[in-house]
Amino acid sequence: MSSNKDIESLIEMMARLPGLGPRSARRAVLQLVRKRDLLLLPLADLMHQVGVSVRECETCGNLASSPLCDICISPKRAGPEICVVEDVADLWAMERGGSFRGRYHVLGGTLSALDSIGPEDLKIPKLVQRVADESVREVILALNATVDGQTTAHYIADQLEGKVRMTSLAQGVPIGGELDYLDDGTISAALRARKDI
Amino acid sequence: MSSNKDIESLIEMMARLPGLGPRSARRAVLQLVRKRDLLLLPLADLMHQVGVSVRECETCGNLASSPLCDICISPKRAGPEICVVEDVADLWAMERGGSFRGRYHVLGGTLSALDSIGPEDLKIPKLVQRVADESVREVILALNATVDGQTTAHYIADQLEGKVRMTSLAQGVPIGGELDYLDDGTISAALRARKDI
Ligand SMILES: [Zn+2]
Ligand SMILES: [Zn+2]
Repeated sequence: MSSNKDIESLIEMMARLPGLGPRSARRAVLQLVRKRDLLLLPLADLMHQVGVSVRECETCGNLASSPLCDICISPKRAGPEICVVEDVADLWAMERGGSFRGRYHVLGGTLSALDSIGPEDLKIPKLVQRVADESVREVILALNATVDGQTTAHYIADQLEGKVRMTSLAQGVPIGGELDYLDDGTISAALRARKDI
Repeated sequence: MSSNKDIESLIEMMARLPGLGPRSARRAVLQLVRKRDLLLLPLADLMHQVGVSVRECETCGNLASSPLCDICISPKRAGPEICVVEDVADLWAMERGGSFRGRYHVLGGTLSALDSIGPEDLKIPKLVQRVADESVREVILALNATVDGQTTAHYIADQLEGKVRMTSLAQGVPIGGELDYLDDGTISAALRARKDI
């Protein structure tokens, strides 16, 4: 189509990214080629860099370039609260909200009978262990307000009952809503108004 | 925001691509990280490969990995017709149409008094030279049906008058329409019904 194999492969691969179809992938590739030194080559380097260095934080499941992520390493984030989220996109959404100053626990999904995802497939045992090992005084369950999200929250609440204070995001999270699609102010408000489970 | 400098830079750079905003850039980066071996690292390699090898074809202005592009090299495309297009996206659109079997000439834009783009800024002198040097019998002006596109077509027609048969895409190109946004069938129909200028 483009009469050049590498360019065609690049367009095909870009078209597999969420948000890009074939037409926008073609436009993106032309833009990349036009800005070879400012965009294409730096982007290639950065992707390679991220590709060889990215891993899961051994403690919380966040993306990291070393065994522990920047949040787990930071003394500023060493509060007595752990915020439990489904995935890294939700952690990013919480960070954009900017009002949570503790650490996270990224489950890596939700319990789902339909998809046969049980507690062992998520990082729930690791969470129970962290609560036992670290001086955690509060676990904030910031799970999506979906059926699977709430099922997971209840399961975790059962596991940790009596061991730690548990709260959930309250005000502002719409029914069926997903954290990653909320505006930053709503997330901050929900965090401030969190309530005991 | 993502608590990791490289990931943040990657999101920022991806968000500069046409079609991707900050949210879709975040989703794309998460997808890339999740498919590290299948998508992120191969994409990084391919971008690097394209970045170090891509150049303009010395004859036609198409993207190439060697001094001449694959179309200019191919004996199958050595017909007596040259199709003149504004940019590489339009060449790709013509190729998707699949009915033109000759070679191209990519102008690199259109004449524009507003943007002070004159004939010397485009590859118009090179086109005149190709018509003189190569055994060209027909120049198909496949320029966009915009004011600048048509101004450019008239200028080229003046330059080549009496030297070669000139045609333009006819049927099916809507007024104000741009080639890159047309469906493939329309482009084929317009090519078949091309008329003398
Ligand atoms: Zn961590
Ligand atoms: Zn060429």
